[in-house]
Amino acid sequence: MATQAATGVLAGLRIIELSAFVAVPLGGMTLAQLGAEVVRIDPPGGGLDYGRWPLTAEGASLYWAGLNKGKRSVTVDMRTDRGREIVRGLVTASGDGAGILVTNLSPRWLDYEQLRAERPDVIMVVLRGSPDGSIAVDYTVNAAAGYPSVTGAADDVVNHVLPAWDVVAGTLVATAVLAAERHRTRTGEGALVELSLADVAFATVGHLGHVGEVVVNDDDRPRYGNYLYGSFGKDFVTADGHRVMVTALTPRQWAALVAATDSATAMAELEDELGVDLIDEGARFAARERIAEILAAWCAQRPLDAVGAAFDAHRVCWGPYRSFRGLVEEDPRVDPDRNPMWALVEQPGIGTYPAPGSPLSFSSLPRVPVTAAPRLGADTGDVLAEVLDLGEEDLAALRGAGTI
Amino acid sequence: MATQAATGVLAGLRIIELSAFVAVPLGGMTLAQLGAEVVRIDPPGGGLDYGRWPLTAEGASLYWAGLNKGKRSVTVDMRTDRGREIVRGLVTASGDGAGILVTNLSPRWLDYEQLRAERPDVIMVVLRGSPDGSIAVDYTVNAAAGYPSVTGAADDVVNHVLPAWDVVAGTLVATAVLAAERHRTRTGEGALVELSLADVAFATVGHLGHVGEVVVNDDDRPRYGNYLYGSFGKDFVTADGHRVMVTALTPRQWAALVAATDSATAMAELEDELGVDLIDEGARFAARERIAEILAAWCAQRPLDAVGAAFDAHRVCWGPYRSFRGLVEEDPRVDPDRNPMWALVEQPGIGTYPAPGSPLSFSSLPRVPVTAAPRLGADTGDVLAEVLDLGEEDLAALRGAGTI
Repeated sequence: MATQAATGVLAGLRIIELSAFVAVPLGGMTLAQLGAEVVRIDPPGGGLDYGRWPLTAEGASLYWAGLNKGKRSVTVDMRTDRGREIVRGLVTASGDGAGILVTNLSPRWLDYEQLRAERPDVIMVVLRGSPDGSIAVDYTVNAAAGYPSVTGAADDVVNHVLPAWDVVAGTLVATAVLAAERHRTRTGEGALVELSLADVAFATVGHLGHVGEVVVNDDDRPRYGNYLYGSFGKDFVTADGHRVMVTALTPRQWAALVAATDSATAMAELEDELGVDLIDEGARFAARERIAEILAAWCAQRPLDAVGAAFDAHRVCWGPYRSFRGLVEEDPRVDPDRNPMWALVEQPGIGTYPAPGSPLSFSSLPRVPVTAAPRLGADTGDVLAEVLDLGEEDLAALRGAGTI
Repeated sequence: MATQAATGVLAGLRIIELSAFVAVPLGGMTLAQLGAEVVRIDPPGGGLDYGRWPLTAEGASLYWAGLNKGKRSVTVDMRTDRGREIVRGLVTASGDGAGILVTNLSPRWLDYEQLRAERPDVIMVVLRGSPDGSIAVDYTVNAAAGYPSVTGAADDVVNHVLPAWDVVAGTLVATAVLAAERHRTRTGEGALVELSLADVAFATVGHLGHVGEVVVNDDDRPRYGNYLYGSFGKDFVTADGHRVMVTALTPRQWAALVAATDSATAMAELEDELGVDLIDEGARFAARERIAEILAAWCAQRPLDAVGAAFDAHRVCWGPYRSFRGLVEEDPRVDPDRNPMWALVEQPGIGTYPAPGSPLSFSSLPRVPVTAAPRLGADTGDVLAEVLDLGEEDLAALRGAGTI
């Protein structure tokens, strides 16, 4: 692990993670896959997410394995005073790149002020559900955010399957750690950094213009099914029953789409009929159903191969719809032999399968090798020896007492 | 602007942004809203996203305003040699926290090696659609990622309305800048950092266990409609026709839900009948339709107020579904008087409306005030004077030539 960390851009950072579920584990892993040493702490037997679905036939969690790659795992009984003392000790241990905690659990005994008393420049990043302390998870935040009410074609709410807010918040946790650590390097000051899933989600709603639509335009965006809002984009069915997503956001993409589908005449007639210029994105959106008719007929006459070949030849912005299986089996961007972000990883208790590393590649440094998630508690002894200077006797006593 | 920057945790950083659409503008804004000086460069008249919908009645883009808050705006004619030289000069200007470019356009004349010749430790973060150079946007990447094929209840693909991959990638751009700048501070080395929307999306698919489901379990996850996968969560309708999302991910949340809905007896009977213990998340998922029947009947007999009161009294993890208008008008978490992340901002050319700042709050520092997006080109003269030391005569000549 020490060797791995030395290869990444974040070598020298040590983050203690007390977490469960998606966001904070992903935040920690984002840092680990860039070379930071990330120590995830769980109770013996595992935390709230240790058995989270999907599971293998043997009952191992593919979810847990996926979100804890490249970390070290320490198990401590945090119901005991000694266990809590160990966790606080790991968080507040000395060292330039140490003294950093990320958590979405933040139990009362792991209080920022108390940590700060032990290490004045400690950094603690805390993710909550809501800024007001009310309980919230990705799924309830998303319901309130407005998206399920405008997703899909039917007049019904449609939940996301992707826990998007968890993923964004987790990525922002990584940003928060680096921002706070930069500040600490320059000023010597630590920080308590707080964020919530709800703030992350609703800020995004604001950034993307939806709040302005309501307040400035006195509008409430309706659902547009699979049409892309404000320009042209839609799904189409090919002659052999495949589906493709086709977009034309820019003038160049629109020109490419018209050329690829031989529809210059039809589009010109449509422009004449409607008195618009379809090079304008708003005009394309207004005329979306008419445009779609023309393109649907073209796609319906050709199998996927021919559609894709014509689109690629003209550099149309398109892509096939795939199932997860289709993605894994057909998309070259998920092939470890063709994309260095992926590696075949042997995951203890699960087997060997392709796993992704960081989407970030740094020119001056080799990629951090993609490594498996640890076995639960595998690094307890090593970490306590390295960070807290505990000897074999101490560790044996802690094991005897069931603390670790 | 200098005053504002001085208040944030990233004070002292200067990022040059050559961008359009969501991801990189959001990445730049994430840094700007933490106090970095972010200079967005556009062609005179605006870039590809300057007229992106939603628009106000007067034709101003709420989208552009939303994604460029707190930045400075410089317009330069980049078709001219002098214009390109100015952009390269802004990117490679001296200064500890300067020398950073984020872009999703990366024209050939703005090449990393050339920038590096002018400033050896320059940092350039480049976002592309696909790692293999093929064209891709959020909507085509999402189609390939697998989610639209399992979203919704009907047997049809359902596109996301939220451009989730853009938002995640943009947040990761901010992470990349800080990781690279940390490395530069420690080693003196700059970096070309590359990422793609496709890698961000497909890495997430891997992290969340979907690749393992295919390769290890030989499974392809079907659609489960609005049910949360692997535990219990679903939407319900109240007596007065409102919809609520209810989840019970943890044993505590499950106990709260059973208590709030007075369904201990019904759930115990269900456990007996099925021979399962619903405290187990997998058992809840397997019995989801039976559980939903019990809860649906309970919700259907009560108006939203009563449902919410019972849920809150027991700390159930739930939330109402809202439209965007409902979010803005009803959710206290989006009220500038109650949530300091929000402020009423006067956006030039648009009006005054609530706008979000950073979801991150740093204990030791005041929040960076939420400020509007600049008028296009508003800072051109100031930035060129400050960073490139151009005098009034130089600026007048550039204006005369139409270069700025």
